[in-house]
Amino acid sequence: MKRRNFLTGAGVAAGAALATSFPKPTIAQDKMEWKMVTSWPKGLPGLATGAERLADRIGKLSGGRLTVKVYAGGELVPAFGCFDAVSQGTAEMAHDAAYYHINKISAAGFFTSVPFGMTANELNGWIYFGGGQELWDELFAAFGVKSFLAGNTGVQMGGWFRKEIKSPKDFQGLKFRMPGHGGEALAKLGATVVQLPGAEIFGNLQSGAIDGAEWVGPYNDLSLGFYKITKLYYWPGFQEPGSALQCMVNKGKYDALPEELKQIVAAACAAENDIMLAEFNGRSPAALSTLVNEHKVELKQFPKSVLLALGTASGEVMQELIDKGDEITQRIAKSYFKFRREAKNYTKITEIAYATSRDLNFRYPQG
Amino acid sequence: MKRRNFLTGAGVAAGAALATSFPKPTIAQDKMEWKMVTSWPKGLPGLATGAERLADRIGKLSGGRLTVKVYAGGELVPAFGCFDAVSQGTAEMAHDAAYYHINKISAAGFFTSVPFGMTANELNGWIYFGGGQELWDELFAAFGVKSFLAGNTGVQMGGWFRKEIKSPKDFQGLKFRMPGHGGEALAKLGATVVQLPGAEIFGNLQSGAIDGAEWVGPYNDLSLGFYKITKLYYWPGFQEPGSALQCMVNKGKYDALPEELKQIVAAACAAENDIMLAEFNGRSPAALSTLVNEHKVELKQFPKSVLLALGTASGEVMQELIDKGDEITQRIAKSYFKFRREAKNYTKITEIAYATSRDLNFRYPQG
Repeated sequence: MKRRNFLTGAGVAAGAALATSFPKPTIAQDKMEWKMVTSWPKGLPGLATGAERLADRIGKLSGGRLTVKVYAGGELVPAFGCFDAVSQGTAEMAHDAAYYHINKISAAGFFTSVPFGMTANELNGWIYFGGGQELWDELFAAFGVKSFLAGNTGVQMGGWFRKEIKSPKDFQGLKFRMPGHGGEALAKLGATVVQLPGAEIFGNLQSGAIDGAEWVGPYNDLSLGFYKITKLYYWPGFQEPGSALQCMVNKGKYDALPEELKQIVAAACAAENDIMLAEFNGRSPAALSTLVNEHKVELKQFPKSVLLALGTASGEVMQELIDKGDEITQRIAKSYFKFRREAKNYTKITEIAYATSRDLNFRYPQG
Repeated sequence: MKRRNFLTGAGVAAGAALATSFPKPTIAQDKMEWKMVTSWPKGLPGLATGAERLADRIGKLSGGRLTVKVYAGGELVPAFGCFDAVSQGTAEMAHDAAYYHINKISAAGFFTSVPFGMTANELNGWIYFGGGQELWDELFAAFGVKSFLAGNTGVQMGGWFRKEIKSPKDFQGLKFRMPGHGGEALAKLGATVVQLPGAEIFGNLQSGAIDGAEWVGPYNDLSLGFYKITKLYYWPGFQEPGSALQCMVNKGKYDALPEELKQIVAAACAAENDIMLAEFNGRSPAALSTLVNEHKVELKQFPKSVLLALGTASGEVMQELIDKGDEITQRIAKSYFKFRREAKNYTKITEIAYATSRDLNFRYPQG
């Protein structure tokens, strides 16, 4: 954790310096073009297309006063380089997931998803109405970055495995792609965890460089073709129960926008937050059918013993994050976990109880 | 059902006539002020405040070119009169729930919530990506109305009861406030179902005119003070597993807007769709604690026999709607129920499986 704290400290200083030394925004006849770097493979449904839709909407809402050009991961900066690009002003905006940056900022994972954490609905509740946004603003302001919620994948799948997972021991020695704290939990069970951007997963799976990988869920995973390598597809995605995507904006550039354009950026992000989650939830059921029926993918539930081991490992990872974290990490963790505890009770008598009652045996139109 | 069909037919003719005879929008120096009538008690958190936030956002995004003045239920038109007001052009916009109008338009309920139907996440998926919006547009265009998703309550509670519900027989003779097809299902179990706008529920409960009522959930129900009348609060809300709120716009006025303002109205609605659901999910857990701990409210789960009877009755109500419905009602129902069937399978291995695994017994930070 020393290294992580050191990097955070350095980042703070650099961010502070940058915030004051930025050049004024280039305004030609009241029209601006901004760059949006992303972490996504070009054209990837849901994530890349969502970033494109967000950019496009900003242009339309502003009547062309602010247009946004989108770059795929690796096109202008590396797929995992979005945070630095925005912090340093290489790009005015970015679309990625905050948890790609937990090595730089310990608390960043709370603004995407943490293993056995909150669902999309709960997380949105915390960020908009539970103090989450204020904590996020404080955390990223030190780097000259302002982030907005701008999409969510919903509950993910547990991922693609070459061999069956029958007990926690089966993770030992497994080379697996999983980012964030979920990956740290997997490492506690003996897996060798690998970080790879979306575009590099298929090749690594194919070559055998990794034994398995999780990306998102049926809609995205079908596009990326993982079913061509292995048929074993596990659920539920303990590691990411509702991963938020973020739109990062260079804080200096954002603060310099006229009020109306600030409102437009914020509204476009909230709209995308709504629509991307709907896209994942709306397109995944049919994609799941395609995977199972056309591509003979076998859906497998993690056994209870495995979920318990993953839960215990995840609990340890999150507790260590608190114990070793700096003051703001601890404050964010406290807020997040307290909100999670109450939200969990509410979700139990609403979403879970309802969805369970819907499965009772009664006649109902099937369409 | 004859009567319903007749009314629908009459509405179609009237709507079509109105669509062509509207006066041109009043534009003074490129600034417009629109009226938004709502069905909500003034200032009610979540619903009324959400409509206010939506109206305010349209004004801000448009830099004041289109400002929207919001009216509480009954202020300009009756709380249940929003559809007619927008159809006839008394108001340019409205915020309410489509299922308040099922007596006029049989298929309207699918665009709010139907008993044992889709959750908020599933419904958003269907409307944005499953063909729902196109069907909704077609259904309402006949009345000169264009609707947008503009909020959701999430899974509701089953409601407030004066006496315990131990078996399906306990609904016999019960005077209960419940709108939509959920109310029709309750009537099948022998209840006398009453339609009342939100502002009139408390008085009717207090006077004993009704024996019980469902409104939304902890956040709203706490505000409306139902706990002062009775302490028995049932879950889950089989009748409304994710009720969408709609922003209706007079189609003639909407079509006449410049492209940029159309985009602004649509984006503001999508943003509100995101934020209102987050508000209900974000504020309800604490409200639930307040109800239970401060106001000694007793949470009760509907027994399985009751849920089964409600499921069967709901299935019958929905099947009758299909059997007796006109062509578009049947087409909408088919699309909705087919989407629900696939979505249900997906929700089972994602939201439910995840939330259930989160409740296994392992150590995890509690905030």
